[in-house]
Amino acid sequence: MKNKRVAIIGAGPSGLAQLRAFEALEKNGVQVPEIVCFEKQENWGGMWNYSWRTGVGRYGEPVHGSMYKYLWSNGPKECLEFSDYSFDEHFKKPISSYPPRPVLFDYIEGRIKKSNAKKYIRFNTTARWVDYNNANQKFTLVLDNLKENRTYSEEFDYLVVASGHFSTPNMPYFKGIEDFPGGVMHAHDFRGADQFKNQNLLLIGSSYSAEDIGVQCYKHGAKSVTLSYRSNPIGVEWPDGIKEVPLLTHFEGDIAHFADGTSEKFDAVVMCTGYQHKFPFLPDELRLKTKNNLYPDQVYKGIFFNELPQLIYLGMQDQYYTFNMFDAQAWVARDFMMEELVLPEKDQRRKDMDDWLKRLNNLDGCYDAVDFQSDYIKDLLSLSDYPDFNVDKVAEMFKEWLGDKEENILTYRDKTFTSVVTGTKAEEHHTEWMEELDDSKERYLAFQDEVEIELEKAE
Amino acid sequence: MKNKRVAIIGAGPSGLAQLRAFEALEKNGVQVPEIVCFEKQENWGGMWNYSWRTGVGRYGEPVHGSMYKYLWSNGPKECLEFSDYSFDEHFKKPISSYPPRPVLFDYIEGRIKKSNAKKYIRFNTTARWVDYNNANQKFTLVLDNLKENRTYSEEFDYLVVASGHFSTPNMPYFKGIEDFPGGVMHAHDFRGADQFKNQNLLLIGSSYSAEDIGVQCYKHGAKSVTLSYRSNPIGVEWPDGIKEVPLLTHFEGDIAHFADGTSEKFDAVVMCTGYQHKFPFLPDELRLKTKNNLYPDQVYKGIFFNELPQLIYLGMQDQYYTFNMFDAQAWVARDFMMEELVLPEKDQRRKDMDDWLKRLNNLDGCYDAVDFQSDYIKDLLSLSDYPDFNVDKVAEMFKEWLGDKEENILTYRDKTFTSVVTGTKAEEHHTEWMEELDDSKERYLAFQDEVEIELEKAE
Repeated sequence: MKNKRVAIIGAGPSGLAQLRAFEALEKNGVQVPEIVCFEKQENWGGMWNYSWRTGVGRYGEPVHGSMYKYLWSNGPKECLEFSDYSFDEHFKKPISSYPPRPVLFDYIEGRIKKSNAKKYIRFNTTARWVDYNNANQKFTLVLDNLKENRTYSEEFDYLVVASGHFSTPNMPYFKGIEDFPGGVMHAHDFRGADQFKNQNLLLIGSSYSAEDIGVQCYKHGAKSVTLSYRSNPIGVEWPDGIKEVPLLTHFEGDIAHFADGTSEKFDAVVMCTGYQHKFPFLPDELRLKTKNNLYPDQVYKGIFFNELPQLIYLGMQDQYYTFNMFDAQAWVARDFMMEELVLPEKDQRRKDMDDWLKRLNNLDGCYDAVDFQSDYIKDLLSLSDYPDFNVDKVAEMFKEWLGDKEENILTYRDKTFTSVVTGTKAEEHHTEWMEELDDSKERYLAFQDEVEIELEKAE
Repeated sequence: MKNKRVAIIGAGPSGLAQLRAFEALEKNGVQVPEIVCFEKQENWGGMWNYSWRTGVGRYGEPVHGSMYKYLWSNGPKECLEFSDYSFDEHFKKPISSYPPRPVLFDYIEGRIKKSNAKKYIRFNTTARWVDYNNANQKFTLVLDNLKENRTYSEEFDYLVVASGHFSTPNMPYFKGIEDFPGGVMHAHDFRGADQFKNQNLLLIGSSYSAEDIGVQCYKHGAKSVTLSYRSNPIGVEWPDGIKEVPLLTHFEGDIAHFADGTSEKFDAVVMCTGYQHKFPFLPDELRLKTKNNLYPDQVYKGIFFNELPQLIYLGMQDQYYTFNMFDAQAWVARDFMMEELVLPEKDQRRKDMDDWLKRLNNLDGCYDAVDFQSDYIKDLLSLSDYPDFNVDKVAEMFKEWLGDKEENILTYRDKTFTSVVTGTKAEEHHTEWMEELDDSKERYLAFQDEVEIELEKAE
């Protein structure tokens, strides 16, 4: 292990999971490689580190975050709980199943703050370019210290790419959009519903973004929300004020025309048209080239680049599981880098990947997809000592969540679930989600009676 | 010259000037080096190539353009005319002195279309990284073909950086901005006034952007426009509906507070807070590090990187002169690359730069600044065979323009000037600028009588 060096690109949930995985060993007295984590942003948390900025950041790099105000978890927190750091351990009391962004950020940060992982992270530093040298089997990274406007190079034995894949917008062209008079933005640049109050809003897409931004804008006072889908509508029962229409064909001024021949006037457009996997710092032969799916090709066990397993990708899948999946991946990656886990030969790895891809191609709907990713998680858990958790029970919760959403898209966040890590049953939030316009940690964590006192004072 | 290779980064006015400069020689039968021009966008024209996109482009690269709808030249076209390709030659008839964006784009394109320069340009290609090798004195460029998602490297003897400096926003933080409920954008992402109709708009800054976006929004129906300046107001006589206030100190919700203790409620904020010189593809020791000023340090004659003159920067100055200055620079750069122009030694170059910088530091107001840049242009013109033009007369026009703006910021674009290239007096535009809401080339070029016929038809 001595003298080996590991570079991690990104200090979001995946990159931090990798740091945490090594730290878990170190705490047990094991010597770990020298680790450097490069983070473009000023702080850790990746996507969960909210920024008001859009476009490019303070130093002119594309803004990483797609996060917006009033974002509440859109899945039960019990489905993403770290199995080595429970919500109970962090908050010291039960909380609801669907916390807002600041609360989840606090949780992510809580685990990493307990370690001295911060010393491994170089903030405000972006990876400009990576060269892999076959002769000495090392990666040379060109780094750019954005704050100091200074570039330098360093060599590493392993490269962990944990830069996420919900940062680079995919933004198709629609005829006439250049003459649409209102604002046009990608969901990546959406920072909250306030500016759409009393507006007729067109959302293009039927992904989580479309669903969530649509519901938020409805909740926070948009006059109407219209979602335009390409192939299939989201199809839940929408309240009055939200509707789904077929694919947008073109714009004429502020009028949008749809594939069913209908048309409507809009004030603003938000494109919820997804994201691209983008790795500008990598030569293309090392780039993961994939659409967003549950099992990207090219990576064995979803993490090891098959052409060069010292190149490791974390969190590049489409996701039901999130934090706990990144952990499971990071622990496996760690064991490989520690030379504790030996990978099979390339063609065997290829065969394993092909088996998964075959199953992926035959998935039948989202319940089946949950099972697929659950089995993937189980496979990962079998390979490392990341604390086991009841994956089948989590899968059940995911399915319940899918049902809840279908039943009522406006109230599913009022439901509660039971932790598979601690057995704790979540609290009901003190305020119904549709009535809760404040997403601050302070308000969220206030006890029911405190909120009531506040309300009385305010009257 | 044989076997020498020149890389040009950017096919905007500066990069195209460089191509045109070599082409002028080639037409005379001179053998020129092998030239490759790399352009990130799908088309040439740089800043003048309008895109509806904001943030990042189709392939996830930061959008180059800061261009918006209804942008009309904010200086007389007679001050930027190519001296080897007149407006008369292009349009075959006199036009007004302040054309809109599509008309200027047409003009830029007109000259370059006459050549076969397109064959030198690799579109949709960005420069990822540059290494300079002292041993063989060559630049290695890592290029990224965005459309094909393919990277490759090539070696060059000269590197011409013509990537502009009005692309990377400078966006300061103001306390409370993260809670401002309305839209917040940088001028770089402004695409036209329409979305601000009937809104109370706050513009931060007192640059050309603030002035021009403010007047456009006023013209196109904003309820009110407030410009907040840092040190000095623009100070012209504003119409009712536009005003200047001191520096923004902070936001409380949708209320902006200013340094004079006043405060006001706004619907949206546009930061006209300038741009950064940004060269992410260059190692920092080759980066031009400068604020926007009329004579950036580090570059001899405003173009040759003093530490390494084979590295050439075009158009990196703050600009009164534009297209004709880029030309004058490109012709000088060409002669150096052709080994027709020999540069003095490094310390002599340093002394020359210091002399200019000394003068720069003692400039007294904008009339003096015009003279400064005029003298810089004359210096360049003395060094190459770029067709001479009457710089003193152009300087006079700039001064007249400054006075016109001070006299009436809403009508200065109705004035006309006389070309120093052809002696042609500009036509008055068929419609007063404040009444002209259509910036299309078709309408602009229509004869007065055609417009009248159209108007009659519409009635």
